[in-house]
Amino acid sequence: MTEAHVEGRPAPPRLAVVDDGGVTRLHDPSAHSFASDNYAGAHPEVLQALIDANGGHVGSYGADPYTRRLAEVVVEQFGEGASIDPVLTGTGANVAALQALTPRWGAVICATTAHVYTDEGGAPERLGGIKLLTVPTPDGKLTPELIDRQAHGRGDQQRPQPLAVTITQSTELGTVYTPDELRAITDHAHSLDMRVHLDGARLANAAASLGVPLRAITRDVGVDSVSFGGTKNGLVLGESIVTFTEEARAGLVFLRKMDAQLLSKMRFVSAQFLAMLDDDLWLRSATQANAMATRLASGLADLPGVTITQAVDANAVFVVLPRHTVEPLRELHRFYDWNRASGEVRLMCSFDTTPEQVDRLVADAAALLRP
Amino acid sequence: MTEAHVEGRPAPPRLAVVDDGGVTRLHDPSAHSFASDNYAGAHPEVLQALIDANGGHVGSYGADPYTRRLAEVVVEQFGEGASIDPVLTGTGANVAALQALTPRWGAVICATTAHVYTDEGGAPERLGGIKLLTVPTPDGKLTPELIDRQAHGRGDQQRPQPLAVTITQSTELGTVYTPDELRAITDHAHSLDMRVHLDGARLANAAASLGVPLRAITRDVGVDSVSFGGTKNGLVLGESIVTFTEEARAGLVFLRKMDAQLLSKMRFVSAQFLAMLDDDLWLRSATQANAMATRLASGLADLPGVTITQAVDANAVFVVLPRHTVEPLRELHRFYDWNRASGEVRLMCSFDTTPEQVDRLVADAAALLRP
Amino acid sequence: MTEAHVEGRPAPPRLAVVDDGGVTRLHDPSAHSFASDNYAGAHPEVLQALIDANGGHVGSYGADPYTRRLAEVVVEQFGEGASIDPVLTGTGANVAALQALTPRWGAVICATTAHVYTDEGGAPERLGGIKLLTVPTPDGKLTPELIDRQAHGRGDQQRPQPLAVTITQSTELGTVYTPDELRAITDHAHSLDMRVHLDGARLANAAASLGVPLRAITRDVGVDSVSFGGTKNGLVLGESIVTFTEEARAGLVFLRKMDAQLLSKMRFVSAQFLAMLDDDLWLRSATQANAMATRLASGLADLPGVTITQAVDANAVFVVLPRHTVEPLRELHRFYDWNRASGEVRLMCSFDTTPEQVDRLVADAAALLRP
Amino acid sequence: MTEAHVEGRPAPPRLAVVDDGGVTRLHDPSAHSFASDNYAGAHPEVLQALIDANGGHVGSYGADPYTRRLAEVVVEQFGEGASIDPVLTGTGANVAALQALTPRWGAVICATTAHVYTDEGGAPERLGGIKLLTVPTPDGKLTPELIDRQAHGRGDQQRPQPLAVTITQSTELGTVYTPDELRAITDHAHSLDMRVHLDGARLANAAASLGVPLRAITRDVGVDSVSFGGTKNGLVLGESIVTFTEEARAGLVFLRKMDAQLLSKMRFVSAQFLAMLDDDLWLRSATQANAMATRLASGLADLPGVTITQAVDANAVFVVLPRHTVEPLRELHRFYDWNRASGEVRLMCSFDTTPEQVDRLVADAAALLRP
Repeated sequence: MTEAHVEGRPAPPRLAVVDDGGVTRLHDPSAHSFASDNYAGAHPEVLQALIDANGGHVGSYGADPYTRRLAEVVVEQFGEGASIDPVLTGTGANVAALQALTPRWGAVICATTAHVYTDEGGAPERLGGIKLLTVPTPDGKLTPELIDRQAHGRGDQQRPQPLAVTITQSTELGTVYTPDELRAITDHAHSLDMRVHLDGARLANAAASLGVPLRAITRDVGVDSVSFGGTKNGLVLGESIVTFTEEARAGLVFLRKMDAQLLSKMRFVSAQFLAMLDDDLWLRSATQANAMATRLASGLADLPGVTITQAVDANAVFVVLPRHTVEPLRELHRFYDWNRASGEVRLMCSFDTTPEQVDRLVADAAALLRP
Repeated sequence: MTEAHVEGRPAPPRLAVVDDGGVTRLHDPSAHSFASDNYAGAHPEVLQALIDANGGHVGSYGADPYTRRLAEVVVEQFGEGASIDPVLTGTGANVAALQALTPRWGAVICATTAHVYTDEGGAPERLGGIKLLTVPTPDGKLTPELIDRQAHGRGDQQRPQPLAVTITQSTELGTVYTPDELRAITDHAHSLDMRVHLDGARLANAAASLGVPLRAITRDVGVDSVSFGGTKNGLVLGESIVTFTEEARAGLVFLRKMDAQLLSKMRFVSAQFLAMLDDDLWLRSATQANAMATRLASGLADLPGVTITQAVDANAVFVVLPRHTVEPLRELHRFYDWNRASGEVRLMCSFDTTPEQVDRLVADAAALLRP
Repeated sequence: MTEAHVEGRPAPPRLAVVDDGGVTRLHDPSAHSFASDNYAGAHPEVLQALIDANGGHVGSYGADPYTRRLAEVVVEQFGEGASIDPVLTGTGANVAALQALTPRWGAVICATTAHVYTDEGGAPERLGGIKLLTVPTPDGKLTPELIDRQAHGRGDQQRPQPLAVTITQSTELGTVYTPDELRAITDHAHSLDMRVHLDGARLANAAASLGVPLRAITRDVGVDSVSFGGTKNGLVLGESIVTFTEEARAGLVFLRKMDAQLLSKMRFVSAQFLAMLDDDLWLRSATQANAMATRLASGLADLPGVTITQAVDANAVFVVLPRHTVEPLRELHRFYDWNRASGEVRLMCSFDTTPEQVDRLVADAAALLRP
Repeated sequence: MTEAHVEGRPAPPRLAVVDDGGVTRLHDPSAHSFASDNYAGAHPEVLQALIDANGGHVGSYGADPYTRRLAEVVVEQFGEGASIDPVLTGTGANVAALQALTPRWGAVICATTAHVYTDEGGAPERLGGIKLLTVPTPDGKLTPELIDRQAHGRGDQQRPQPLAVTITQSTELGTVYTPDELRAITDHAHSLDMRVHLDGARLANAAASLGVPLRAITRDVGVDSVSFGGTKNGLVLGESIVTFTEEARAGLVFLRKMDAQLLSKMRFVSAQFLAMLDDDLWLRSATQANAMATRLASGLADLPGVTITQAVDANAVFVVLPRHTVEPLRELHRFYDWNRASGEVRLMCSFDTTPEQVDRLVADAAALLRP
């Protein structure tokens, strides 16, 4: 989730030159915030994998042993026929995946809150040539009924042709689709000859929340392709597109290049994904972030005048706080406004959020609420 | 330089699981090739900087102390008013920089051999909406006279309007523009109300070759904006756009997002650039690569039947070898064909190429040429 | 107005070969419908002008005396500094005009009902690279307050930059902005450094409704550029872009070509516009269409169970009819559904609609409503 | 053929208000030029058809009896399975046809002189997202061998994928492919899994030149889709896309709308095409234009110092005239420079060019050449 639509941005962390055992840093490595899971750095296991992949020469643009091994691991995780194509940004992943799923005249149905619609600078339309057809939702989740509001007009030469649906899991509102909800969407979409893409910038959080493997909420429920995120789950940087059919991957490697998403030293992204998929690091990291969100919501819910506004299924807490507490609390813990009119803010937990940090925020909020 | 137009690709390095002091790798860290400077990994100083930037939370999308410090360093290197915007790929850098330099109806003059024309999957046209107007050159270098072949038709409503020139330094043919040659181009272009962009994927190699600071072949000779490369000079990954005027940077941050080039954890790219600019690492790395190319060319030039086809100004050697030697030599050292018809191949040196590796190639070539 | 979003389309008029005084036609020239003002043909005065422009050779692509004269006439109508550039379709006019008004990173605010958003096949986004930011309205009309819902985020690198507003006059719902309402919008937009475009596919109907000259609701109220429509007001085919500042026209002739809107034999479109502007033909035609809509609304409003749903300011009547009457009435008079859920239909009058045709529809509706 | 690359444009015809039997015109209907076939107006039979199609209401966007009849006539002319989709400009026809033939990642091979490359303002790249891969030719005609220069790199992720070839018939240099030459191209292209598009802005001239029906140089030789031109052969305005397979037409009606080429009052273009195809008007008009070019070339060839530079297969004559004669002759007859360096000019004949006009030019040239 980017913060494009957020009106009140926190000040950036203060510059801090820290000499810590001889290492000169420009930042304080103990700083924490609830602003976004991309304020966090990289998980140490991921960083180590990147370090180990260094040295010597390997083929570029994916012709390296890390990318080859990643292809095998993805088959192990998602089943026969699954493919992975590393890219660089979430926007790039979404655009290339949707381009591959649809012909030039295709349009894509999404929720009004979808990141691809609100937070990507118009890249899907302008870079991808993809018309987005939006539907408002109460909780960020599409349903067959909501999809039908835009799924009409096939064959009408003046209407962008709705040929795909994109859903976000976990959603931009921190909610999670159940496997049954996903299956209902893919069955419905496929019955209308539409493909289904899943924006999985936080797929790991959703799977951890549901206690299921990654494939249980993607391939096994009929999703055609996935933007499988890494950055928000502890990578230095790196996203990927996982596809389950030849059709969903048609032309993808060419689109990746056209969309400026082809990395020459691809080993460095592939090695990080290998680490993330190794020994269930993805699950450990997501579980931690989710648990911290639950703890946070639970602590805040008990406070007077505080309303949790969305189900806390994953690592985000949406909450309305009494107005006078927002700025003092933000000063201490940093977070983004979600809806300035209603006073709703978003608190986001990361793989490296600790119980102490959560409890401190709750305590600070409680103190501010004391009469 | 990518290898899109190369007809004979070398096989990828053999898979090698190496247990080296407890570290399990999928590749051999002592492997070397002459295929491309992006077959190399990251320079240890760069990698250390990335490691040091990890830990704790900092602002995302550039609101971090590493990106702020990088902005200062770029002013120190390029002078007052210089700005840097990190991006992810060379294609992304070129597209966004050229979009910022030209209005929607602008076209860009480039050499027929320009990477932006031949090796970027059509991204400038399709992602960027930029019409490229090409001119053949003998050595990859444009001149005022060559530019004039396409610089006509201003105001003609049916002709894409030539509003910018893009040149590559060092060129795709391993040649280097002198400051005077650059100044002649920018003066001419500006006199025709065209802006000048420089694709500096190997800018460091050019500056090292000329023995001048980076600004001497960019800002000081009137260039408007630069794709300042990192990956080919020892970064894990990372490119950037350096601009010298407000006009050249107009809208650039929005274009970067639209082009899917905005990295959330930007600190990790900025920290690498800081390392590259610290203590002249850029110069040390480029000097090494250049010196190895010179040594290589010199060694090969003495062999019978061998012709060096381009001036070896930077880190590339273009050479015609006797036909029967090409495949055996490629098997040992890996490199790309440049022109299969003429038998010309390209040998590329990196920051980590050693004299021993160069001498071994020369010795192997000599052995193959022995009657 | 196209019919892209209309759910229930009427059957096409029956094929009728009519021999009328020796002329073999494939259609019945006395047929009428209330489906759309583009079901009508060309006004005889317009057709005569096209005929008179034929014969002999003139310069192409606008270098002809008709296009030159049109430029003068437009200055007479809209004042010094006004320019006109003929194009071919309304979509093409809107796209090129908006491209000229905004840089590559610009986004455009419009009503959710705007033709440019709902009925142009995604052309603004895909052909034009323009992100549309939509606002729901009750009556198709934007206001400063409604604009503000999307006019935020200037400088936020992740938000498409709202740099222009486009409004439709008369609107897709048949309503008309007053000059004061327009002035409020342009003042507000300009105060936010946004330009204002007016989609005037039915500009003539609005001016006729208000009883003011064309310039009173465009230039005189601060609009920057206008898609000045011809086809819906009696041209064979032809649209145009009228601009009032050099800035609004920057690059427009190049964009017109890039958007495939440059006609070689431009004299034939220019001559039609000359006829339309000659002797106030635009006003006579629009007045007739508007008067027929008023007569129609007035006749229907008296019938039991009939609700007129929008102000009938121009040539459209939006009405909810008792369900059982819709299909029998459509069979006789042809019209489009607007909202199938509510039963709202749209009845559109043209320059060639007659009182008899209107009265017949009202009588037919009355007969169907009789118990 | 537009004149984008022509350096020396003739002055526009002088303004002439002519009162001719009560008709007030802004131009001289007896004026003639050799500048372009789009300087001519409409053929009287075409204009009459447009007039007859007027009056009354018919369905818009193609749901009219003229468009339906045209569909039948096209099957009669081109055989079962042929389809026609009217559009507005040649650029629009080429872009939409090529988009329909190729997926998003497709590139298209064309001659360096192809109109689509040189004269369409970058529309194919920018509007269509189509990378063009060019090959120089001596006479505007591609061959299997020339195509092979660009037909490589299939599957190479960094190369735009060559998936179609576009050829022009008659070519921009006035030459004509024989059916055998066309068959060799389509066989070769299809064997490489590439589709073949034919830019037939002057298809009629080619067919007339060869003395064959239109289908003999399109469908019968394996072409997949054709931009079938009307404007240059006597229409007021109107182009079309004729396709021979379902695959070649996939999505075409949506692309037509996206490319702003969908005309609401389509009857007026369809009726003109009906007239053009009725009683072989296309052939009569093209034969006249071709014959005049032959007469012109023959007359000029006898003059001293005059060199005809291309085979005069259709309605264009490319000729080098002694330098001192060019401007005086241009003053009298108007024509465009083709190559200012060599002094080559282009003389173009139209359906309404007469022997007297040709002979006058030859006589004037002869007079200028007299010592």
